Amino acid sequence: MASGNSASVNPSSPRDIAFNLFEVLDTEALVGRERFSDHDRDVFTAVLDTAATIARDKFHTHYRLADDNEPSFDGQRVTTLPETKAAIEAFIGAGFLKAGASAEEGGLQLPFSVVQACFAHFQAANVATTSYCFLTAAAANVIRQFGTFEQKQLFMEPMLEGRFLGTMCLSEPQAGSALSDIRTAARPLEDGTFAIRGTKMWISGGDHEMSENIVHLVLARLEGAPSGVRGISMFIVPKHRLDADGSPAERNGVRLMGLNHKMGWRGITNTVLSFGEDDDCVGHLVGEANRGLEYMFVMMNEARISVGLGATMNGYTGYLYSLDYARTRPQGRLPDAKDPLTKPVMIVEHADVRRMLLAQKAYVEGALSLCLYAARLIDDHATHPDESARADAELLLELLTPVVKSWPSEFGLEANKHAMQVLGGYGYTRDYPVEQLYRDNRLNAIHEGTNGIQAIDLLGRKVRFRNGSALAAFEKAVMADIEAARHDEAVASYADGLEQKLRAVIDATRAARGHAETDLTGYLANASVYGDLFGHLVIGWMWLRQARVASARLSAGGLSSDDADFYRGKLAACRYFHAFEMGRIDNWLDIFSRMDRTTLDTDPAWL
Amino acid sequence: MASGNSASVNPSSPRDIAFNLFEVLDTEALVGRERFSDHDRDVFTAVLDTAATIARDKFHTHYRLADDNEPSFDGQRVTTLPETKAAIEAFIGAGFLKAGASAEEGGLQLPFSVVQACFAHFQAANVATTSYCFLTAAAANVIRQFGTFEQKQLFMEPMLEGRFLGTMCLSEPQAGSALSDIRTAARPLEDGTFAIRGTKMWISGGDHEMSENIVHLVLARLEGAPSGVRGISMFIVPKHRLDADGSPAERNGVRLMGLNHKMGWRGITNTVLSFGEDDDCVGHLVGEANRGLEYMFVMMNEARISVGLGATMNGYTGYLYSLDYARTRPQGRLPDAKDPLTKPVMIVEHADVRRMLLAQKAYVEGALSLCLYAARLIDDHATHPDESARADAELLLELLTPVVKSWPSEFGLEANKHAMQVLGGYGYTRDYPVEQLYRDNRLNAIHEGTNGIQAIDLLGRKVRFRNGSALAAFEKAVMADIEAARHDEAVASYADGLEQKLRAVIDATRAARGHAETDLTGYLANASVYGDLFGHLVIGWMWLRQARVASARLSAGGLSSDDADFYRGKLAACRYFHAFEMGRIDNWLDIFSRMDRTTLDTDPAWL
Repeated sequence: MASGNSASVNPSSPRDIAFNLFEVLDTEALVGRERFSDHDRDVFTAVLDTAATIARDKFHTHYRLADDNEPSFDGQRVTTLPETKAAIEAFIGAGFLKAGASAEEGGLQLPFSVVQACFAHFQAANVATTSYCFLTAAAANVIRQFGTFEQKQLFMEPMLEGRFLGTMCLSEPQAGSALSDIRTAARPLEDGTFAIRGTKMWISGGDHEMSENIVHLVLARLEGAPSGVRGISMFIVPKHRLDADGSPAERNGVRLMGLNHKMGWRGITNTVLSFGEDDDCVGHLVGEANRGLEYMFVMMNEARISVGLGATMNGYTGYLYSLDYARTRPQGRLPDAKDPLTKPVMIVEHADVRRMLLAQKAYVEGALSLCLYAARLIDDHATHPDESARADAELLLELLTPVVKSWPSEFGLEANKHAMQVLGGYGYTRDYPVEQLYRDNRLNAIHEGTNGIQAIDLLGRKVRFRNGSALAAFEKAVMADIEAARHDEAVASYADGLEQKLRAVIDATRAARGHAETDLTGYLANASVYGDLFGHLVIGWMWLRQARVASARLSAGGLSSDDADFYRGKLAACRYFHAFEMGRIDNWLDIFSRMDRTTLDTDPAWL
Repeated sequence: MASGNSASVNPSSPRDIAFNLFEVLDTEALVGRERFSDHDRDVFTAVLDTAATIARDKFHTHYRLADDNEPSFDGQRVTTLPETKAAIEAFIGAGFLKAGASAEEGGLQLPFSVVQACFAHFQAANVATTSYCFLTAAAANVIRQFGTFEQKQLFMEPMLEGRFLGTMCLSEPQAGSALSDIRTAARPLEDGTFAIRGTKMWISGGDHEMSENIVHLVLARLEGAPSGVRGISMFIVPKHRLDADGSPAERNGVRLMGLNHKMGWRGITNTVLSFGEDDDCVGHLVGEANRGLEYMFVMMNEARISVGLGATMNGYTGYLYSLDYARTRPQGRLPDAKDPLTKPVMIVEHADVRRMLLAQKAYVEGALSLCLYAARLIDDHATHPDESARADAELLLELLTPVVKSWPSEFGLEANKHAMQVLGGYGYTRDYPVEQLYRDNRLNAIHEGTNGIQAIDLLGRKVRFRNGSALAAFEKAVMADIEAARHDEAVASYADGLEQKLRAVIDATRAARGHAETDLTGYLANASVYGDLFGHLVIGWMWLRQARVASARLSAGGLSSDDADFYRGKLAACRYFHAFEMGRIDNWLDIFSRMDRTTLDTDPAWL
């Protein structure tokens, strides 16, 4: 029997993560910057090893178990698996919640790109359990940045110690993506706190018994606030109120209305929460009134990179499982072998199986490269010694963030679809992990801003950002890599191909700009098509960057056989992406360039 | 709250099925053929209505229930839902198991295309429960065609009455797609029966207590038989042996080893069966020794059309649910509306939502048209009065069968992906049916010959079939529709576009033919890519056929407002498919035409 299940496969690839960090992104150079000067490459590597180990031993081990045993609610308490709690404790105990925080706050002061690379291991191993940690980290970061000294002491510190866990409460049942329509209300009380009242939907980690307290960050509207997104404030709303010395005391008026039952992500509670039904819910204003959404958006770039990375790693884990299966499952014979008495070959020998493996590899390794590239932009924006490099990093990050969120969530899922196909009937059963990865990954195109919304962000805002300067920064960055690759015969054709597509996309984007002024509806009608073509262009670029490094290593020689195979694999996946995928850009570009109006011209009554 | 769930939505569209049958395919003309001369259009319509009603009231009502309550096995007996049994009884009671059989056998003697159209309703409503019926029908058909008089009396007749249900036992754990490697053995006994010994995998309906008996059709290898597929025989193996008067008596040696737990299709038992572990399993040879696979393949065209139709209808049902949701869910505002106090619009007004609805419509209505077209070819092959028309129908059917199986199973699933996206977070929960449709539909690319195998069948056999005469018949049929459409201004551009793609595909196919002789491995390396491009070409054709009829109806005038909307919807979906999808053919054709060797050149060690 072939494997392809948990016993035999590591859910992530430390080798590929190290390749991206140290060979493609030169992460080691970051130790030359003041903030990271206490570190060296060995420290980074040790932290990455720790992450991979905890992810495999504490997170991946209950990946299926948590899927089979969804959290339950008996009307009073929510029951979750002890393994989930143990994993969260291991994560926090090893310092990962504060991995990026400064040393003076007790953090490890690691570069964001290294932190994300660590997180990749956890997301690969168990995306649902990891989410409890990520949500807590994100909520703590918001309080760190915008909260009062007292709020940090009372809420952030217990969160960073893992005693309190956190959530983000944005959506409401009647307003999923439309935050301007949220109705949850906040009324000032005499003691400076606020009475919160409303219902929040899709709140991950919204209730459980795994921590002493749960800290909800709730978006709500103050009485008399401006309508729309400019009238939204942010509140800290704890599940338990705190007593005089900051310990959790009586329940606050946050009630669990019910658990949502999803197709995947079953390991984390997903809740409908009612606040202040009996006028008994107290919240604490974060920062200034009416700036809540702005505060949330400060975290949004990181959250979107995190979703992109999660989608990537779901895809990546599926790739590793299906590759293991394909190498160990004998079946069928090659087209030229007619004799049924010859031994069946391993299915990796079949061209079509190899196509599905190469497609997965091209998707997930391309996406991983992009996620880590974007994480590095956050580092460069924050710590690059050169001011113009910092500015360019910010521009590029703004432009790429919707791509980082949406491309991996489309093509990581596509990779999972292929992984299941490689395993055939077995892949469709719950005895193998690929079906769970496929179910889990389907969420990523929906949450944290649907991919349709990301596409509108890209075309409607980002490519027009500061008079097109983000697009110009992108062009400059891609061209630099193209120029650098031109002189290496092994990758020059990819450089040429990429340049041709880049020119076509940039030209079409600039040509369309006028429409944004005169016919915004028509301009945005094919935003998703634009998102698709731009995403493919970006991944074609990421493959050129990886292939150039791989080619240089192979030329330099002196490699172990494993290393040589690794680099040849990079070249093969680059070849695949450029041969099979880059050509898709033309069709999308045709649709976009002619400002196709099919969707607008179709009356809903005709559907 | 928007709807989009079972209470409000009909799972299939009788209007679209009638459109295909009576307006596109002129099914009424079949009553001019002798076999169908006792029928008229009213009879067809009445049967279709009955199917739609039973499907909705008996099948769809337990679609979710059966997913939530998978069959269980306590080591002795398998428990299934009473609703499943009641639905099967209603199906059989209404005569659908014998809908295509001749009147003298007690059948309704309906055209296959009408039977398939009826079955579309059942598959839309509940694909798993429907499978019990289909498997029984298929097994009974095999016995009808190849069994002895006594076998028909003892096994087929109780099946047609619904007293016995049937299965097909082909795959084995070590040989999923590779039937030449099956090991189940048959040894002749003195009384003319055979001792069967082996293990079969993925057997749907393999055990349950819903019928007096279960009739397994088992592929096994006689001692001393030739190796490979030419040494496979077929046996009837009942769960219970029959006593002297044909009633089920003691158990035969068929043991349920366990139930497979799948991502979807949870409403039907899927089993591992062990035959003759204690040398206690008796089987009855069907037809001649060593011709078992040939007998199975006689049923294969119909089974593959059935899988394609099931995938289509899973996609179709998701389309109808998401359309209902999009029409009733208010959220967000159009790009030009900046005032947050204006009322939110129904999400169907958003261009990107409409894109996802149009894509679904183009996929599922295109696929339905293809499935019913193929079903009609079976009718024409069997009953067309003109011999050359019969021959052409057979050729076209051979060529199109792999497309009918695989294209809907790729793009019906893609439709389900869009349906979930339209419902957003709600779509990802088990409170709405779209997630189940998405899970169910994922199987169709795997079973009944994986899509990779279909593509090899298409490129390796079918386009070369009888010296390319199937391809020539295809070209002739498509060109006839192009010529007929050229003079209608509303559709002429689609005719021209289709012709250009048709020429390119035919030319590339013919140009590649030499490779099949000199380099079969290289020729077949991009079979899946060829399958994709050929599938899109076929669906582009199907849309031209539908659009031409719709345009003619609109030109003729005198339509009700509903009818006018229906035909305009056909034109809109045709426009969408030609504007957004047909352009994809170019990229696939490039890869195929250059006989891209990326997959072959990639050493498995590099992955």
